[in-house]
Amino acid sequence: MIVTMQSDASEAEADNVIALLRTNGYDLHLIRDAGPVAIGINGRPIGSDLPSVICDMPGVAHIHSGGRPYKLAARGVRPLGTTVQVGEVQFGGPLPAMIAGPCAVESREQTLRTADIVREAGGVMLRGGAFKPRSSPYSFQGMGEEGLQILAEARERTGLPFVTEVMEPEQVELVAAYADMLQIGSRNMMNVPLLRRAAATHKPIMLKRGFASTIEEWLLSAEYILAEGNDRVVLCERGIRSFDTATRFTLDLNAVPLIKQLTHLPIIVDPSHGTGLRELVAPMSLAAVAAGAHGLVLEVHDNPDEALCDGPQSITGETLAEIISRSTAISSLLSPTASLLAL
Amino acid sequence: MIVTMQSDASEAEADNVIALLRTNGYDLHLIRDAGPVAIGINGRPIGSDLPSVICDMPGVAHIHSGGRPYKLAARGVRPLGTTVQVGEVQFGGPLPAMIAGPCAVESREQTLRTADIVREAGGVMLRGGAFKPRSSPYSFQGMGEEGLQILAEARERTGLPFVTEVMEPEQVELVAAYADMLQIGSRNMMNVPLLRRAAATHKPIMLKRGFASTIEEWLLSAEYILAEGNDRVVLCERGIRSFDTATRFTLDLNAVPLIKQLTHLPIIVDPSHGTGLRELVAPMSLAAVAAGAHGLVLEVHDNPDEALCDGPQSITGETLAEIISRSTAISSLLSPTASLLAL
Amino acid sequence: MIVTMQSDASEAEADNVIALLRTNGYDLHLIRDAGPVAIGINGRPIGSDLPSVICDMPGVAHIHSGGRPYKLAARGVRPLGTTVQVGEVQFGGPLPAMIAGPCAVESREQTLRTADIVREAGGVMLRGGAFKPRSSPYSFQGMGEEGLQILAEARERTGLPFVTEVMEPEQVELVAAYADMLQIGSRNMMNVPLLRRAAATHKPIMLKRGFASTIEEWLLSAEYILAEGNDRVVLCERGIRSFDTATRFTLDLNAVPLIKQLTHLPIIVDPSHGTGLRELVAPMSLAAVAAGAHGLVLEVHDNPDEALCDGPQSITGETLAEIISRSTAISSLLSPTASLLAL
Amino acid sequence: MIVTMQSDASEAEADNVIALLRTNGYDLHLIRDAGPVAIGINGRPIGSDLPSVICDMPGVAHIHSGGRPYKLAARGVRPLGTTVQVGEVQFGGPLPAMIAGPCAVESREQTLRTADIVREAGGVMLRGGAFKPRSSPYSFQGMGEEGLQILAEARERTGLPFVTEVMEPEQVELVAAYADMLQIGSRNMMNVPLLRRAAATHKPIMLKRGFASTIEEWLLSAEYILAEGNDRVVLCERGIRSFDTATRFTLDLNAVPLIKQLTHLPIIVDPSHGTGLRELVAPMSLAAVAAGAHGLVLEVHDNPDEALCDGPQSITGETLAEIISRSTAISSLLSPTASLLAL
Repeated sequence: MIVTMQSDASEAEADNVIALLRTNGYDLHLIRDAGPVAIGINGRPIGSDLPSVICDMPGVAHIHSGGRPYKLAARGVRPLGTTVQVGEVQFGGPLPAMIAGPCAVESREQTLRTADIVREAGGVMLRGGAFKPRSSPYSFQGMGEEGLQILAEARERTGLPFVTEVMEPEQVELVAAYADMLQIGSRNMMNVPLLRRAAATHKPIMLKRGFASTIEEWLLSAEYILAEGNDRVVLCERGIRSFDTATRFTLDLNAVPLIKQLTHLPIIVDPSHGTGLRELVAPMSLAAVAAGAHGLVLEVHDNPDEALCDGPQSITGETLAEIISRSTAISSLLSPTASLLAL
Repeated sequence: MIVTMQSDASEAEADNVIALLRTNGYDLHLIRDAGPVAIGINGRPIGSDLPSVICDMPGVAHIHSGGRPYKLAARGVRPLGTTVQVGEVQFGGPLPAMIAGPCAVESREQTLRTADIVREAGGVMLRGGAFKPRSSPYSFQGMGEEGLQILAEARERTGLPFVTEVMEPEQVELVAAYADMLQIGSRNMMNVPLLRRAAATHKPIMLKRGFASTIEEWLLSAEYILAEGNDRVVLCERGIRSFDTATRFTLDLNAVPLIKQLTHLPIIVDPSHGTGLRELVAPMSLAAVAAGAHGLVLEVHDNPDEALCDGPQSITGETLAEIISRSTAISSLLSPTASLLAL
Repeated sequence: MIVTMQSDASEAEADNVIALLRTNGYDLHLIRDAGPVAIGINGRPIGSDLPSVICDMPGVAHIHSGGRPYKLAARGVRPLGTTVQVGEVQFGGPLPAMIAGPCAVESREQTLRTADIVREAGGVMLRGGAFKPRSSPYSFQGMGEEGLQILAEARERTGLPFVTEVMEPEQVELVAAYADMLQIGSRNMMNVPLLRRAAATHKPIMLKRGFASTIEEWLLSAEYILAEGNDRVVLCERGIRSFDTATRFTLDLNAVPLIKQLTHLPIIVDPSHGTGLRELVAPMSLAAVAAGAHGLVLEVHDNPDEALCDGPQSITGETLAEIISRSTAISSLLSPTASLLAL
Repeated sequence: MIVTMQSDASEAEADNVIALLRTNGYDLHLIRDAGPVAIGINGRPIGSDLPSVICDMPGVAHIHSGGRPYKLAARGVRPLGTTVQVGEVQFGGPLPAMIAGPCAVESREQTLRTADIVREAGGVMLRGGAFKPRSSPYSFQGMGEEGLQILAEARERTGLPFVTEVMEPEQVELVAAYADMLQIGSRNMMNVPLLRRAAATHKPIMLKRGFASTIEEWLLSAEYILAEGNDRVVLCERGIRSFDTATRFTLDLNAVPLIKQLTHLPIIVDPSHGTGLRELVAPMSLAAVAAGAHGLVLEVHDNPDEALCDGPQSITGETLAEIISRSTAISSLLSPTASLLAL
């Protein structure tokens, strides 16, 4: 661990930090170059409170720890990776898991028809929003519990488990009573009370990346869930905010190999929300799988000829089937070659 | 309102949209240039559901409404601006309101001493966190209700009202029982259940901007509160995320005149969190007031010589006093000249 | 084309715009909704000067053209796409073209050895910097013409053509005398005099995306080259600047399918500079090819055991060979299915 | 200086670095914590080549120097700050210097009329573009040398010196023959050949910040000019690119106090390009001065009633006069209190 003093810190301020560390038994090295004093701390793990005490001492600029701020999520905890099982679906196994469904549950007919399409196309899990996070109070906010019942009926009918978003702590038990997997959405990635309450159900959790969250912040949110004793966490990249408005978000596939290097948790990708453009969904799906993703989440609509609800990012069942078959082919090209893409 | 078709939309798709609009009695203008067909809709406000129905029709690229998506927050609703009163403190009046206090309530002594410093420096309101939003589960999460009791004691002692953050819907009533004003933090700006529950208390609310939220998203979050019948909303700019890591966030002062143009709600600025650097707090405070801010929120610590809790962005009571006296002077330079900076 | 007036524009200002357009013979539609007046312009292409005249009239907010601001680069000009030939290397054909080489030419030995590695691994073209753009005046600025001579020797030896960066207009002829293809770097994407001078050589040009440039700005830079009568332009995505510092840049693979939709020019990807991390180069290479890229540019070093020049993003010849063989396999999976990823 | 090894670096790799440093006579401290090995280097300045050699050694992750990468631009070189004189205009003195003029020189009449307006409003220097950097090859590219002649005539007439942009190395001598100060625009901030050629004229240089450049990159560009022996550099903040499209750019006033802390060079602000919105120019001008800016650059138009050339960010002479008088008042409020805003 290295403590760096501010450039205008006094000798006395540096001495205070040094004295405190020596009192606590640390082995120190002082580094004085052209810039501010840096203090190297050696030899054994530092206590959990001491860093924040030092951080608050006058003249201290910042503390650079050699280790990562997340512990349970770190790759080293399970070097071979974690497999999260939802019914018969496996995240983190050899094949990418394909989740698909409508953006929102809008009616029983639309949902059941879409579920059939997903199963026929080769999907292994359903998605669909019963409670919808919306920027505007004047937008459709979802069907609520009725939507959950429709999703449960779709599961009966198709045999596919479903994942759906939970938006507030008080809703967690209700949603968990129906869903096979709970989704924490992008806007709620840092909603700690929600993370804790969802973790406590011991259901598997799909944790979407905040659209302006760093990789480290994302893993710290996962750490909140792991720290509650629930390690059934699947991370989902869904696009970050950038300066370019050509796409609604910038799907960040760099996150896939980076996440695989940093954590043992599975990582999947949502190219539908991540790009917001139907034409980009197929190529970015294949790219995600080629980058090593453990699965995809895709928005599908039922019948484009009749549909009123054909969002600009939803694909047809036909496109879904093609994505699934080619993803499987790409995935099998990668699998024997673990040495290259490995972890 | 203008509907733009996708560049590869068929004639039939455009005709479907046109037919639906004509059926609903709209007066239409077709615009066909080198690019895709655009359909201008004239003459009377369009129904609340129709835009989302059109948006979902095949071939529709997007809908550009002449109006803003927020209604109650729009400047036009109260052209002279809203004044939010918290005890004797006025947000939106002629003088900037100065809020200050520790980042977190860490002990009774530290809080009372800091409160004294704030009052002596000329502050009119206290701030301090009892519940703290933290990226990491291993960081200090606040003193909770005990912190609220200490803040209430500081109010008794100084006569200054206080604002403090509320982080989850279930906490709202507890925090509202103590606090004079509820703070919705940056990470919760889009936490709709929290916005609604806080609004229902009819307490004044300080709504911080999400660190990656657009101005429009911010005003839509305010709209959620206004739509619950609570118009005592004060907006607070606190820095956005950018590519430059020289400061922790990029305090976006452009938001101040822009917000004053778009909405009637008061706007204040938090240069402490917005920059994360003590040396920048004073100049950016004066800049915020010169840009037209209705107030400031500042982090102050009690005694730098003894303090363990001297964050890199906290200022002393002396600096606070100077900021307040110069802000007042700058503000009085601006006031007679409403024509220039107007709104 | 749609002209939107400012929200506070007067009737008289709108009338001026309308009068000018009518005088010029346009067929107009006025759209007055809750928001500002919009004027739809119909029926025939507007003259090249008129838009900028209107744009400058009082009260005009902005002009939204149905068409794209680039003309020669637009997909519609050559719906089947452009193939750029460099010797026997083809960009825009059925197979991705693999370019590799050292970051900078540092010595004759290192360059020739690396060139051998590239050829053996299956690369079809060499890269290497003789003139280097550096942020700091104290960094190595490249070997200059001597570097070009070394690259020419490497070409003799391996039979592979090479691409190298040109940094200023006065250098263009010198570099063009040696190189098979000129590279315009990310920092020079908007350097118009350089674009024009390079275009005038009629050499093929690799145009890297500015690290903070939108897709539209990038295509407008290509338009400068095309407008000089040189259509041998290959676009190269190399990472954009975002808020996350986990990678040096955020390689934006969304650009690949988007560029293929918007322009007929080939698009290749540079995962070495785009991520800055060796471990990410292989997975992001395969992802780029799966997304539809027409080629890759990769940094390779000669001998990691002896090398002094082993940048954190350079890969070995072995990894290069694996990337090339798997890219070819992925590419052949995609090719028969032009309908899905098409354009 | 601290060298950090990669997390998967071998013992042998760390030993190689250590051996090289010891051979070169450095005093080392090894820091081994939970994370990777860090090597602290003590005692004397390290040679100019060694860091880049180490950086390239296998297993090295990065080098963190206590010092700044810019030397001549560092604050410590001239703790009292540099004053740049252009005729009678002073940048870095007690009063902010007010530069104003049209965006582009479009005609003799417009330019002379605008110059009169600037002088009458209290401006001390003229600005105006003769060569214009444009994203599109189809936009007006400026009047060229004729524009320079018109600007020279405006100088004769008003007695005010002028600054104008130079866009390519070969233009430098021509522009320098007319102009009092050379402007390097945002898109050319990293155009090293241009920086060097402009520096060689020994004219004062206004160096605009790249719209996606960090503060450190900006100071490194200034360093290129200083390293040529020209220290007459004035930095100009002009807005950065962010995710919010409510303003064309995000004017980053945090840069003002930060730059004053890091360098001795004067810093001015361009709120016209920095916001792109006329209504924001006055409040952001006053904010810039309150933040400590040494001057402003403003776009002014001549006669809004007749003008064809009234860009959405240009202000009238009346507004300019008000900005100048209030800026002076704010500036005088700040001056006696150097202790607070100091540097």
